[in-house]
Amino acid sequence: MAESKAEEGRKGITARKSENFSEWYTQVIEKTEFVDYTPVSGGLAFRPDGYFVWETVQRATDALFKKAGILNVYFPMLIPEHLLEKEKEHVRGFAPEVAWVTHAGKSKLEERLAVRPTSETIMYESFAKWIRSWRDLPLRTNQWNSVIRWEFKHPTPLLRSREFMWNEGHTVFATREEAEAERDQILGIYEKVLKEYMALPGIAGRKTDSEKFAGAEASYSIEHLIPDGWAIQGPDFHSDGQNFSKAFGIEFINKEGKKEFAYQNTFALTTRELGVMIAVHGDDRGLVIPPRVARIQAVIVPIYTGENRELVLRAAKSLAETLSRSVRVHLDDRDAYSPGWKFHNWELMGVPLRMEIGERDIKAERVVAVRRDTLEKREVKLKDVAEGVGAILDEIHENLYRRAKRFMEENTHEVKTYAELKKVVEGRSGGIAQAGWCGSAECEAKAKEETGAKITNMPFDAQGRARGRKCVVCGASAKFIANFARSY
Amino acid sequence: MAESKAEEGRKGITARKSENFSEWYTQVIEKTEFVDYTPVSGGLAFRPDGYFVWETVQRATDALFKKAGILNVYFPMLIPEHLLEKEKEHVRGFAPEVAWVTHAGKSKLEERLAVRPTSETIMYESFAKWIRSWRDLPLRTNQWNSVIRWEFKHPTPLLRSREFMWNEGHTVFATREEAEAERDQILGIYEKVLKEYMALPGIAGRKTDSEKFAGAEASYSIEHLIPDGWAIQGPDFHSDGQNFSKAFGIEFINKEGKKEFAYQNTFALTTRELGVMIAVHGDDRGLVIPPRVARIQAVIVPIYTGENRELVLRAAKSLAETLSRSVRVHLDDRDAYSPGWKFHNWELMGVPLRMEIGERDIKAERVVAVRRDTLEKREVKLKDVAEGVGAILDEIHENLYRRAKRFMEENTHEVKTYAELKKVVEGRSGGIAQAGWCGSAECEAKAKEETGAKITNMPFDAQGRARGRKCVVCGASAKFIANFARSY
Repeated sequence: MAESKAEEGRKGITARKSENFSEWYTQVIEKTEFVDYTPVSGGLAFRPDGYFVWETVQRATDALFKKAGILNVYFPMLIPEHLLEKEKEHVRGFAPEVAWVTHAGKSKLEERLAVRPTSETIMYESFAKWIRSWRDLPLRTNQWNSVIRWEFKHPTPLLRSREFMWNEGHTVFATREEAEAERDQILGIYEKVLKEYMALPGIAGRKTDSEKFAGAEASYSIEHLIPDGWAIQGPDFHSDGQNFSKAFGIEFINKEGKKEFAYQNTFALTTRELGVMIAVHGDDRGLVIPPRVARIQAVIVPIYTGENRELVLRAAKSLAETLSRSVRVHLDDRDAYSPGWKFHNWELMGVPLRMEIGERDIKAERVVAVRRDTLEKREVKLKDVAEGVGAILDEIHENLYRRAKRFMEENTHEVKTYAELKKVVEGRSGGIAQAGWCGSAECEAKAKEETGAKITNMPFDAQGRARGRKCVVCGASAKFIANFARSY
Repeated sequence: MAESKAEEGRKGITARKSENFSEWYTQVIEKTEFVDYTPVSGGLAFRPDGYFVWETVQRATDALFKKAGILNVYFPMLIPEHLLEKEKEHVRGFAPEVAWVTHAGKSKLEERLAVRPTSETIMYESFAKWIRSWRDLPLRTNQWNSVIRWEFKHPTPLLRSREFMWNEGHTVFATREEAEAERDQILGIYEKVLKEYMALPGIAGRKTDSEKFAGAEASYSIEHLIPDGWAIQGPDFHSDGQNFSKAFGIEFINKEGKKEFAYQNTFALTTRELGVMIAVHGDDRGLVIPPRVARIQAVIVPIYTGENRELVLRAAKSLAETLSRSVRVHLDDRDAYSPGWKFHNWELMGVPLRMEIGERDIKAERVVAVRRDTLEKREVKLKDVAEGVGAILDEIHENLYRRAKRFMEENTHEVKTYAELKKVVEGRSGGIAQAGWCGSAECEAKAKEETGAKITNMPFDAQGRARGRKCVVCGASAKFIANFARSY
């Protein structure tokens, strides 16, 4: 598969990430083998390298969900129109972007079916049947699937897609307290997976009322900052209170024998994270895939001539075998390509570590390891190669995370005045303006209209600093510290 | 969650599997917590117990695919109409059952989009771009997703669903030989997973031309026999030859520098297997879930009075903790239900092993283990309990498989005459009539029209016996040994 794409790839990425992020991102998508466009606008093909990332993130998240006691389920992808209409805010939020199935074969359906944009309505109809007593609670479920939201006039691969894969967690509790206690657990799981697998930092906080999920009482998110200075929402968590339980009749007999509506939450992590990962870690040579989610963690490039080909390939194969016990390794033994061409190709594809081995290395009982993140070269003794490579992969992971976190921190600016806010969010390099906010929808709307920046969220760890601050828009006393940024 | 459903479950299954299979199956679906009906006709909710089976089967299959070098990918669920029409046989086969998306929000789409009934057409459009040279081959991909086929006027949960989950393998090779060699590998993987996880035997063989997949050159299947005497198709494998590569332009430059069309295969395993599993293993008390796919493998039911409650519960908890290291165990410590009620409930839900522990058992340092498959009771010493339970679970698995295999063999009848064939397939207990067949579509159609039985497949392991046999329909010389049965 490598040749054809790689031939184009030879040309390499010509845009510079720091100068023209959008063109750079497009080229990375087009010239690598991570995802691909399809004839469906806003619908992507996830190629093996791309799907591997998702699969790994999914399994890691799923294992933590299971440990927390959340059970996987699966509900139909087509939802009858009358169900979608049961919760008013919810349908208002989603109706404009629903893909409608109207016909089956040649027959017109009696009722239109929505391709799920999210599954509250179909799931809660069942929950209402399953739940009768406090003994049936909590009911903590999750499903892994894909959804369609026909939004975005101009989709961007992964970052703004019309179909995306995700987890949708749907949980039901007997009390508000239990429901609320779930929030930190779930956001903690998401933060852990983002950090430990994708090397992605994020800012956890509460969404404003105008940005919350359709049907929720309160929404929470982890927000990312993309290198173009725009923010993008990562995983989210919604406290639905009794909104859906009232609409769908999810009642239970409590310990006192009385009927009560249940409390619900939902939460999600989507394939949008793959776009964030590309955007945050990639560089002017192409993709940089964090080691723990890379399908190929180390590629071996043997360096030989016509004369020592057998000798070098034998050593390279033996190295591949040794490493394969602990690392996802690939030996690129294609004769048709030069080592230089291969170096370039695997850098473009984002493989975390390249191992070069030639006759001189064999004699010196070593291999040359080249890190994708820093391009730094290091000699590793063959006798310690498995340990050595493992350690370097960990270093790469740590470095990617640290670098991304520093970028986020350096581009988060505490601002006191509206002028400062404008300067940050309208500036060429963008970023986050952190400021006091009175909590009014008017101030939020004014800032958005005038600067293009919305409130991404109100970071949990900044709220302690709200006291004594003024609203950056109206100057009234601040209730919250809010992050303003232009956002995808 | 247990209480409400369990209360209904108290009534238990009233139909007898051997007398009225169809009513029995319906009751099992309705009275257990495996899957549930939804307001979408033919669309099921997979509850935790049901989804766990699928998830386990999926992971086992996926691990074997990965070992074989197959890579996971993901393609969009909506397929533009013009793509679906590219291969004529294919579109003829699927068009009548396609769910069509015609609108997004309030706007009519310019082109209708099919909710994927299968993904050949969208995938092969990409494959044609990705593949250029023999070096890009083989390309062996797979995706896990769900598909919609609006068939069946009267859907049956799991066995005849309009939405089902599956794997769809799509592979591309440079030569016919390589493509054909994949068949035994894949069917071998499916047989292994069915046997080792779901305790399900099957009959592997080739489908007739009239039963093959729309667009394939040849189809192969693993067929099951349901206790009502009807056959049902399990996993399948299709040799597509160059049919799709010609329709989609999947060409490559071979080693000699010439352009050639590639050879392709597809293969699938679906959630229909969950229905087969229920049908084959279940009994008059309800579900019987094979241990390796059971979400709860062993349930502990403590037996106590008001006086020794603490003592017994303490021992039960300690037992649960010991077992939890090696077994998926659940302690049912609900005070509101009697032990008898709990026995009944967990039998209905199909939990493979029940562990009873009371004061006398504690004193004797033992626990009573009751197998779901045979209802046999056995005392297990507490000091060996982890080993003991592991061994019993293995025995249950082996017994379920052996029993299912014996049933299949006892109901496969070698027949020489058309009268014998009719007697078997039209008989009350049904089954498979194995007979010589001349290979003509006329004889196949005649048998189907007159007896309701189709040729499920031509078993690989029976073809050696074709020589010298006559066609059971026309009496001409037999080319194949074929299995005739009424089939779902």
